[in-house]
Amino acid sequence: MARSIRRQLPDEDIIYFGDTARVPYGNKSRAAIVRFAREIMAFMTEHRVKMVVVACNTASSLSLPSLKKAYRVPVIGVIDPGVKEAVRVSKSGRIGVIGTRSTVASGAYDRELAKFGPPYRLFSKSCPLFVPLVENRFSNDRITYEVARRYLKGLKAKGIDTLILGCTHYPILKTVIKKVIGNVRLVDSSSAVAGEVKRAFLEKAPEACRRNRRGRMKCFVSDDAEGFRRIAGMFLKEKINVKKVAL
Amino acid sequence: MARSIRRQLPDEDIIYFGDTARVPYGNKSRAAIVRFAREIMAFMTEHRVKMVVVACNTASSLSLPSLKKAYRVPVIGVIDPGVKEAVRVSKSGRIGVIGTRSTVASGAYDRELAKFGPPYRLFSKSCPLFVPLVENRFSNDRITYEVARRYLKGLKAKGIDTLILGCTHYPILKTVIKKVIGNVRLVDSSSAVAGEVKRAFLEKAPEACRRNRRGRMKCFVSDDAEGFRRIAGMFLKEKINVKKVAL
Repeated sequence: MARSIRRQLPDEDIIYFGDTARVPYGNKSRAAIVRFAREIMAFMTEHRVKMVVVACNTASSLSLPSLKKAYRVPVIGVIDPGVKEAVRVSKSGRIGVIGTRSTVASGAYDRELAKFGPPYRLFSKSCPLFVPLVENRFSNDRITYEVARRYLKGLKAKGIDTLILGCTHYPILKTVIKKVIGNVRLVDSSSAVAGEVKRAFLEKAPEACRRNRRGRMKCFVSDDAEGFRRIAGMFLKEKINVKKVAL
Repeated sequence: MARSIRRQLPDEDIIYFGDTARVPYGNKSRAAIVRFAREIMAFMTEHRVKMVVVACNTASSLSLPSLKKAYRVPVIGVIDPGVKEAVRVSKSGRIGVIGTRSTVASGAYDRELAKFGPPYRLFSKSCPLFVPLVENRFSNDRITYEVARRYLKGLKAKGIDTLILGCTHYPILKTVIKKVIGNVRLVDSSSAVAGEVKRAFLEKAPEACRRNRRGRMKCFVSDDAEGFRRIAGMFLKEKINVKKVAL
């Protein structure tokens, strides 16, 4: 996600916050996630950011309305751009989404797709083992293929033609998911979100994008930087500067 | 663990705290875990407990010395009783331990077994997928057998005769682990810990154990009680009373 945004808005500085002391969010309650998200928003506003991207599908699903209501700074989530992209590419209207247990239970994707009405229908499935499999480097392992077959069997039977990867970690499993689910379009929301961020920027602060130096990216984490580097290396392909902070 | 303690000390009231908002601890740093443990200790001392059991191997491995130094209330961990039990049952002295990444990296088991000197030798292996497999109800699944074969292969090759289950969740996988590792004694520390708790009690407060009513157990969690109930049902075989609190 951060990588896509950097590609779209190379001049902008990015403040990235990873809540490594409390991840994973995927099985936690709305109340906990809203509280965590508000604490992170407070951190972001202290850094006087111009815009916040909630780049976690669980946090987007559960905290976005509450954040939008509470803060003046524009807040962009990852649900809406993923759904729009799925609607754009789906031919049959039969769209699948996979995510964490809390994302699926929130109904956020259902509500978003319902806005488009027929023929669009959503089929969802939580895949709670995918995050630990990615984080423990089983991404290309036959164990992960077996888990994926188990999780995706039902969606396959529904005859979906498009599948939204509704969790930040799932794009790492693209090859596995593609092989298991067959001829289905996979929607990785990150480029859709980056497009949305750029549009919102141009609308609200057109001058913001014109500068003559490459933007900087600063990463902050709530627990040791070491564990974060282990995971972040899979996603970001540049050297990163990480600092631990207490929320 | 709580169940074993209740069996050993049926008259005592138990205050159980589950840090559901921040679990799993298994990949987190020493600094984070010590901070979490201190916050929970503050909660426990507010409840005027007579003794605290740090019933999580990761928290025991990383925070015990610091807690013992900071608090007057007796604090019992799960590392030392597990090691003593392993020494008692091992014939060859070749002892294995499996645990989370942070437990294994801490070296706590190594330091504890080193006190016994030769012929005791420790072989350790972190098994980070075991906790998510248990929590997602894959405990008796062939996927878990495959993961266990992968994790335990090296320990098997070392010819251990005893294996310490160094994480609260692993006793749920006893059948799988037993089948994969073969003729090896498994040490589930919970009864050893309960014995230690009883001994410490009798020493420090002999009158404490004599009362004429069955002790009560109260559970507190830092996130929604619902998720906790889903997991706790696997461990505790009694109806529980759960309350959410903010730390």
